[in-house]
Amino acid sequence: MKFGRFGQQGRIFFGSVEGDQVAELDGTPFDSYRANGKRHALSALQVLLPCVPANFYCAGFNYAAHVEWGNRRKGTNTKLPDKADIGYRSPSALIATGATIVIPADSPGPVQFEGELVAVIGKTARHLTESNALDCVLGYTLGNDLSERTWQKTDRTLWRAKNCDSFKPMGPFITTGLDPLNLTVAIDVNGQRAAAYSTSKMLFTAQHFIARITQYTTLHPGDVLWLGTDEATEPDLQHGDTVEISCEPIGVLRNPVVRAQA
Amino acid sequence: MKFGRFGQQGRIFFGSVEGDQVAELDGTPFDSYRANGKRHALSALQVLLPCVPANFYCAGFNYAAHVEWGNRRKGTNTKLPDKADIGYRSPSALIATGATIVIPADSPGPVQFEGELVAVIGKTARHLTESNALDCVLGYTLGNDLSERTWQKTDRTLWRAKNCDSFKPMGPFITTGLDPLNLTVAIDVNGQRAAAYSTSKMLFTAQHFIARITQYTTLHPGDVLWLGTDEATEPDLQHGDTVEISCEPIGVLRNPVVRAQA
Repeated sequence: MKFGRFGQQGRIFFGSVEGDQVAELDGTPFDSYRANGKRHALSALQVLLPCVPANFYCAGFNYAAHVEWGNRRKGTNTKLPDKADIGYRSPSALIATGATIVIPADSPGPVQFEGELVAVIGKTARHLTESNALDCVLGYTLGNDLSERTWQKTDRTLWRAKNCDSFKPMGPFITTGLDPLNLTVAIDVNGQRAAAYSTSKMLFTAQHFIARITQYTTLHPGDVLWLGTDEATEPDLQHGDTVEISCEPIGVLRNPVVRAQA
Repeated sequence: MKFGRFGQQGRIFFGSVEGDQVAELDGTPFDSYRANGKRHALSALQVLLPCVPANFYCAGFNYAAHVEWGNRRKGTNTKLPDKADIGYRSPSALIATGATIVIPADSPGPVQFEGELVAVIGKTARHLTESNALDCVLGYTLGNDLSERTWQKTDRTLWRAKNCDSFKPMGPFITTGLDPLNLTVAIDVNGQRAAAYSTSKMLFTAQHFIARITQYTTLHPGDVLWLGTDEATEPDLQHGDTVEISCEPIGVLRNPVVRAQA
């Protein structure tokens, strides 16, 4: 199934996406739901964030080629992590597909995309193991972990480098029944392929992160776990660009980019 | 005013705390509210988290004496920050006053308290200045930024050192009309005074943090900003302890400590 969250004249509801049609649901995929018989053209609806997470987890360095590229480009010496220590992002930075990424006027840049697979938690979970970790996952969506590389280097924390308003596009839909280690995530800028990678190359799997997180922390329905990006994250984004993160069974997360005026 | 959030036989409501009485409110302090005429004995109600933040901000090093003590005790060389870079904590770690802090069975320790003043955001805010920053603050509560010092040193992120389930007690109430730079925060362990400090010694004021955060990020009603701790954070907490964070106009945040069994 492919779940979406939609807006129509101020009303918000979940739906099941079937081609270019949406079957409206009563309830939510995070507790219980049933089709209420109403159908809509997908094009007539506003696609909202597929969920609004209470807790927003993000793997930092989770693919070797991305870390190696970063070291070459930035002259850093970041080592591959030796264990799965999860980080955080701020829900206040989330925007839906179609919404505009706004680069702050005083950003020295570069600002870069990071296209990521996102696990969406569907059930309260604690003390899972790698073998049953995916039982708590409702499905998968996509995220763009926008990063201001100067601030990422100079600030003590990632708040401004990673969490400015609009820096966390997520969506478009949540697809169930996928193998998180057998997907291709592609990134296009202005219609040109920038990168594509296989999620089979994760350093720490979704299963491993979930087992480790739930050793200490309860996961809740609607929480999200962003699983990192691979490869170079170029070209640098400019005012007027459009960036797309895509994965065939999930869809396309498409956002225009502007630079705020001083 | 002193706002609290209460539970009574499964029902949740906000109230105004007046001595040992609570005047029940319809609505919430984060949009609109009015007293509905019902009154309760405070002792008859369950005191819940005073708010459930969508975004949980936390100042890292915000008092000089605490940083200097940490360097002495841990043999580190942490410098005072040169700018106000805010960090994050996880809402999943929050517990109310009275709830039990659970030290994970495999914690090498020490686990320590950090008693903090917490600004609770009441209004949506962006692009504030230091002079109008406090306009968005509903009031102030207290937080205990429990910290597992071994994991704080060894892990790449603070997820486990600071965000295990139950590691973020917050409350008991939200008091309006306070000067955040003129309060005394005290910490007691098993009824013995462990530390007390004046919030006048913040390196970066609440006003400065809010102005800087809102240069890049929208603050939302219910978001919380923990403002750091001063002084030593000893004694180390042990199974069976009770730790209290207090500030006279806000109240006492009191939590027992247990160690989980392996």
